[in-house]
Amino acid sequence: MGGAVQRLGHSFADEALLRQALTHRSAGRNNNERLEFLGDAVLGFVTAELLYQRFHTATEGQLTRMRAALVRRETLAEIARELELGPSLVLGEGELKSGGRNRKSILADCLEALIGAVYLDSGMSAARTLIEKLLGERLDVMDPRDAAKDAKTRLQEHLQSLQMPLPDYSVTDVEGEGHDQSFHVVCELKGLGLATRGSAGSRRKAEQVAAARALEELGNP
Amino acid sequence: MGGAVQRLGHSFADEALLRQALTHRSAGRNNNERLEFLGDAVLGFVTAELLYQRFHTATEGQLTRMRAALVRRETLAEIARELELGPSLVLGEGELKSGGRNRKSILADCLEALIGAVYLDSGMSAARTLIEKLLGERLDVMDPRDAAKDAKTRLQEHLQSLQMPLPDYSVTDVEGEGHDQSFHVVCELKGLGLATRGSAGSRRKAEQVAAARALEELGNP
Repeated sequence: MGGAVQRLGHSFADEALLRQALTHRSAGRNNNERLEFLGDAVLGFVTAELLYQRFHTATEGQLTRMRAALVRRETLAEIARELELGPSLVLGEGELKSGGRNRKSILADCLEALIGAVYLDSGMSAARTLIEKLLGERLDVMDPRDAAKDAKTRLQEHLQSLQMPLPDYSVTDVEGEGHDQSFHVVCELKGLGLATRGSAGSRRKAEQVAAARALEELGNP
Repeated sequence: MGGAVQRLGHSFADEALLRQALTHRSAGRNNNERLEFLGDAVLGFVTAELLYQRFHTATEGQLTRMRAALVRRETLAEIARELELGPSLVLGEGELKSGGRNRKSILADCLEALIGAVYLDSGMSAARTLIEKLLGERLDVMDPRDAAKDAKTRLQEHLQSLQMPLPDYSVTDVEGEGHDQSFHVVCELKGLGLATRGSAGSRRKAEQVAAARALEELGNP
């Protein structure tokens, strides 16, 4: 299992756990799915605690956004690539042929499974050490102010600070079919007599566009 | 702070943590929002571990659905009501007048904050004891087979088992405005020449209705 596992810096008392963590469901029944479930929860908790202890004045919203940035699939897959986890994965024939060793979801899931395996092997303190090592610089450069809020949240907070009613979003039209739909949304600020529009491939994104335009209109981009 | 806190069964070394956990943001700066962030993560981890250890043969999907059922807002608010947490809450004037002591979100958030406070006060083992006590019977009656999948998931899995193409959902119409919208959705099963319809107050719910009808049509309700 070689280099990647050495780079984890954890020596497994129970080698079977390590093997299970590296085994994708395409390779059989004794795979890493349950360990991934556990590891995801360990990672979520440890990351929350690290951020809570490190950023004494960060708000709950800032902590939540920083955590989401650290534990999202893309970040985990990046870390797995840095570890060069791909060659250690145990995959079924089909996944091997279709490039599974480099697939984002497989890499991220395997990293979570490894965290779960280290927790079962040696407890929370070992898992915390591993997670601090894996997140490393990404944790060090976190800044609560960088964890930008989305436009809808900022618009809502801006209106609340002015004691104005909250915006009202409605879908005015939906074009197209299936995965090729376009949503047209209007964002109405009743207290200000202002309405802005947004269009996008999902209702949620169209609302964000409309909210960003409302913020611009209000001189608060 | 009385009866509810006694029923928690945890004696705080640091009473300030307890007070902070009971304080809603409407009552000032030193409120429970950060503790809620931490407590949510502790609860998520402990629940995952309890389920992992208890259900050796449950799949990752079953574990995920059981956990979601245990930690969702409605369950936490129910537990908070059983504890009679309401009278212990520290609320601002406005929340007091508008019935905040009985509001689901406030009760659930406060319960999470209490879990975070117990963790900071006495560590993971105390938090685990508290969570096992709080979930109590709800945990004991969990059954992996009960954690029902939603209709869209079941439809997708059914079609996959038949090696059929996945369903295609489109919004055909949106009526009304703001919070009073009605979404009309069609679910097309191209491989079967079947289309079913659903309507509801959100796109997601309308898709579930349409998927449930497709399952019925396929004799797999």
